[in-house]
Amino acid sequence: MERKQLRSVKPEIRIVGIDDGFFVPHTQGKCDIIGVVFRGGYWFDGVMRTQIEIDGIDATMKIADMIKNSSHYGQLRIIMLDGVTFAGFNVVDTLKLFEITALPVIAITRKKPDFDDIRRALENLPFTEERWRIIKNANKIVRVVTHHGEEAVFMQVTGVEVGVARKIVKSTATRSNVPEALRVAHLIASGLTTPLM
Amino acid sequence: MERKQLRSVKPEIRIVGIDDGFFVPHTQGKCDIIGVVFRGGYWFDGVMRTQIEIDGIDATMKIADMIKNSSHYGQLRIIMLDGVTFAGFNVVDTLKLFEITALPVIAITRKKPDFDDIRRALENLPFTEERWRIIKNANKIVRVVTHHGEEAVFMQVTGVEVGVARKIVKSTATRSNVPEALRVAHLIASGLTTPLM
Repeated sequence: MERKQLRSVKPEIRIVGIDDGFFVPHTQGKCDIIGVVFRGGYWFDGVMRTQIEIDGIDATMKIADMIKNSSHYGQLRIIMLDGVTFAGFNVVDTLKLFEITALPVIAITRKKPDFDDIRRALENLPFTEERWRIIKNANKIVRVVTHHGEEAVFMQVTGVEVGVARKIVKSTATRSNVPEALRVAHLIASGLTTPLM
Repeated sequence: MERKQLRSVKPEIRIVGIDDGFFVPHTQGKCDIIGVVFRGGYWFDGVMRTQIEIDGIDATMKIADMIKNSSHYGQLRIIMLDGVTFAGFNVVDTLKLFEITALPVIAITRKKPDFDDIRRALENLPFTEERWRIIKNANKIVRVVTHHGEEAVFMQVTGVEVGVARKIVKSTATRSNVPEALRVAHLIASGLTTPLM
């Protein structure tokens, strides 16, 4: 799909926010990935789902496929990720995700990523260097204060100017210090993927 | 839990909207039930989930348990149902649900229920008379126009005055002709419970 570069931020810009569901760390198995589509910071438009391997290397392709196969794909203008690691250390290559989907990617975390910690954790997994290269590729970490007086969040931006990304993050964080698409993706992923008693 | 009768409608009134997920009709098996908690017509507060039997008789108790065991229970003021039949003809006894949860129940449908059709369908199932009694108990059908010029919806109200129920339905239908909690419950239930390809 050909897309023009994203330069302006419409109030109803369609965003997909992506988070992972329940999983037991350091086990073999799959983990649900939930995508929530929001129009700007207010309107819930839909959901999508896929599964990735715990500590696997399929997150980038599985998330790209989920988005491209979704009925919302044509309307989407941006992808927001809850960080770049899902289901343990299944790392999303944001540049590849941008190339495949033609959608800019903003990865957001509440804490500043600690690369020493991450590097140490990767030593225990296969494909250490490949994962490390992808994590280091996700561009520089930018601090964003979404609301005056609230805690800052941190973003890594691919495929769009940092200034435009900052505007999108600030204007869609209507209810907390993270954009609604990500806040709600977290609530759904954690609320619906735990096993029933 | 003791609760006062609901008389006034605050803009941020906590609602749980309930809908069923994907299932294959006329089979044996289970179907996901999704509850979405909204504050009024604007803010997504959380989700809950349970499972009921396709064409079974456990919907009332399973939904009551789901709500009472939820961390949102103390804040909730009303339950909204997508009609009174789930997963085929697993019927919710709205009076019993109100008694167990102490929360008023509003069942909403886009089409006016056709009782002749329902009665005929029930003939093919066990517990025909019991299901029929529950359906007939769900109080009279009231037409509500949520937005001037849009299609009306129909509600059956238990545990609260019809006038108060009408106000709640109208004030929380911010994006369509049904309250947001129900619109979003439908999107999540239908979007997340279909099998992955």
